[in-house]
Amino acid sequence: MYINIPETNKTRIVLVGAGFGGLILAKKLSLQHYQVVLIDRHNYHTFQPLLYQVATGGLEPGSIAHPLRKFIKSRPELILRIAEVTRIEAAAKEVYTSIGKLHYDILILATGSKTNFFGQEKLPEFAMRMKTVPQALDLRSMILQHFEEALLTSDLKERDAHTTFVVVGAGPTGVETAGALGELKKHVLPRDYPELDLRRMQIHLVEAGPRVLAGMSEQAGKRTLDFLKELDVQVWLGQPVQEYDGQTVRFASGKELRAGTLIWSAGVIGAAPEGLPDEVKGRGGRLRVDTFNRVEGLDGVYAIGDLAWMPTNDYPNGHPMVAPVAIQQAKRLADNLNRQVSKQPLKPFKYFDKGSMATIGRNRAVVDIGKVRFQGFFAWFVWMFVHLMSIVGFRNKMVVFVDWFWNYISYDRALRLIIRPFKR
Amino acid sequence: MYINIPETNKTRIVLVGAGFGGLILAKKLSLQHYQVVLIDRHNYHTFQPLLYQVATGGLEPGSIAHPLRKFIKSRPELILRIAEVTRIEAAAKEVYTSIGKLHYDILILATGSKTNFFGQEKLPEFAMRMKTVPQALDLRSMILQHFEEALLTSDLKERDAHTTFVVVGAGPTGVETAGALGELKKHVLPRDYPELDLRRMQIHLVEAGPRVLAGMSEQAGKRTLDFLKELDVQVWLGQPVQEYDGQTVRFASGKELRAGTLIWSAGVIGAAPEGLPDEVKGRGGRLRVDTFNRVEGLDGVYAIGDLAWMPTNDYPNGHPMVAPVAIQQAKRLADNLNRQVSKQPLKPFKYFDKGSMATIGRNRAVVDIGKVRFQGFFAWFVWMFVHLMSIVGFRNKMVVFVDWFWNYISYDRALRLIIRPFKR
Repeated sequence: MYINIPETNKTRIVLVGAGFGGLILAKKLSLQHYQVVLIDRHNYHTFQPLLYQVATGGLEPGSIAHPLRKFIKSRPELILRIAEVTRIEAAAKEVYTSIGKLHYDILILATGSKTNFFGQEKLPEFAMRMKTVPQALDLRSMILQHFEEALLTSDLKERDAHTTFVVVGAGPTGVETAGALGELKKHVLPRDYPELDLRRMQIHLVEAGPRVLAGMSEQAGKRTLDFLKELDVQVWLGQPVQEYDGQTVRFASGKELRAGTLIWSAGVIGAAPEGLPDEVKGRGGRLRVDTFNRVEGLDGVYAIGDLAWMPTNDYPNGHPMVAPVAIQQAKRLADNLNRQVSKQPLKPFKYFDKGSMATIGRNRAVVDIGKVRFQGFFAWFVWMFVHLMSIVGFRNKMVVFVDWFWNYISYDRALRLIIRPFKR
Repeated sequence: MYINIPETNKTRIVLVGAGFGGLILAKKLSLQHYQVVLIDRHNYHTFQPLLYQVATGGLEPGSIAHPLRKFIKSRPELILRIAEVTRIEAAAKEVYTSIGKLHYDILILATGSKTNFFGQEKLPEFAMRMKTVPQALDLRSMILQHFEEALLTSDLKERDAHTTFVVVGAGPTGVETAGALGELKKHVLPRDYPELDLRRMQIHLVEAGPRVLAGMSEQAGKRTLDFLKELDVQVWLGQPVQEYDGQTVRFASGKELRAGTLIWSAGVIGAAPEGLPDEVKGRGGRLRVDTFNRVEGLDGVYAIGDLAWMPTNDYPNGHPMVAPVAIQQAKRLADNLNRQVSKQPLKPFKYFDKGSMATIGRNRAVVDIGKVRFQGFFAWFVWMFVHLMSIVGFRNKMVVFVDWFWNYISYDRALRLIIRPFKR
């Protein structure tokens, strides 16, 4: 059955995904010339870079989630439907979703990426992820439940298992998560659990590759290691994880570690919907696109951001899977589609790398902007400012600011709440 | 198996429930003389009077939930366990919980109340409640899901069912919930759903008795009716609800109404744990206590607040089931138990009624303080001030203030998020 959509004789663009890229397109596509139907599985945009702070009790989910209907209220002609896209039928130009199907003239896929477990079998069942708000809330509940459960036993080995956390993957998310756990260990949990000896809490950051923050400078990586050490995080490099059964982590080296929690931030692959031919898939599940973000070989289908694989001379393996790429591609694509109406020539995409940064905890961050590199308090300040400005919506900026301010002056995380207990 | 608790030769008080009363006891009982074990099923205190604002997207759950471990951090000797109490064995002086059992010398039951469906069968399955944070979040999701679903059909009857809300019970919770829905209809939803004709959204407030806010003055009740009318809420008095199957409300009068949502705020009964003898139960599932809150006939067992049935000359049917009674009884009981140590005489409880109030929406509230009664803007201001001051924790006061301020100036509800979709 077709989804109930107002009829029109405009060209219909179906836009799937309201992440960083999708939002820009929803804002910029000309509604005078196109009927734009935005489809997302959530009724809010998620500010993913701060999900780890939701998981560690520093922020509310509502502070990093922005209602989509609020976002589009200045554009009442834009049509929004909350649904899961289940399949694309490119030959018939139809999108199948959980609420029915829909014909498109132009399809823009901005579905981002999903966690990559590299084909390991048990991991997806037992590893915690952090790609969506519910996942971050599950992790928050689980962390706190482990401490509550540690109180129930006097067997030290069991207690230790409950209070041992393994973060896999030392990219920005892994580093930031490990750092946030370090802050909990240092400032918050000892006051909450006077019955436990918090010195026994272990945080392991495990990386298969030879260094942390591989996407940033050597200098940033080195200072990050110092910062992590100050927060009592144990870093393991060149240690691929082989298996995890909910109790024991097994490394490729044969080493084993008992841990109640394993957080997987070791990589992502493109989250392509079902039904697309194999030929259009490039590296890491991403879709091959040309420099105009057109999916190769599919008429009227575009892909942007994490999902798009656009190898260029500067980026022979495709662009990094980060928000700025999605944002810039979305702007370019919106502009090109608007130009197309008046038959103006299209402009190819070129990525402008503004730099990258990661925070490791209170007063600790690393920033690379081209050749300019700095770390420590000022970097942390810059990190906060940039993130605060990037959060969608004035109210959310304000609430995040209040919470950060509060967390900073009180050495506290106010949101250590188990609202919905996590059950495996 | 016994719960793992540090050994002591102090008298052990097991305190069940961290509501308004439980928190006061946890704060005031002498830890020098007593080993106090606080048990609650959640790891946070819920500020129940504002749950309806969580349900209607005005506040975050974290703004009205206060972590218990944060609350007790200034009293590290206080022992907290998160568990569900399943049974009391008064003869053996043991409490059974989801994490094991526990011996008590003194047991204080502060478990409050639960929704009363008056023995109706289908209602508990289909009616929405608002006694806990997860219930309020479920209701929030459900309200928003109904609007998303209304978009999927062009059949007006179905659309109307999705956008018809029945609130049963015109006490403060019912009135405030209906008012909040009225605000959504007036200010928020028309901008969110330009495709729907929001004039067709219906809000019915249904009461079995002859008037709204029966616990307050005639004058308050009358102005409340005016306020509800301004917000387009339809009030039905003397209309007991007989049945609801998730689709159709059937009234005792035979009248029927199609509604996708029925919110039940028509009454509560004492939430007494299992295992207590029938003789100790008074009216409405509450436990018979003397003026020292001792449960009649049970050695060393106390009950306070909503759970306690203490008929006096002033209150022959027991005290009202409201927060101030719980708070005042908790203070008295804590004082009495501390006095008991030094063999000082106990003081009986006497309720001091400070008045009552309810808000119906933006700039609209009713306040009775003894013979002083006022309504409208100033009452609304007083209502806000009193609630803001009563919220536990400085951070939560601050965040609620920011959200109220934001909602007020923007005519918005920022938190219309379906984080976890509600499934029946």
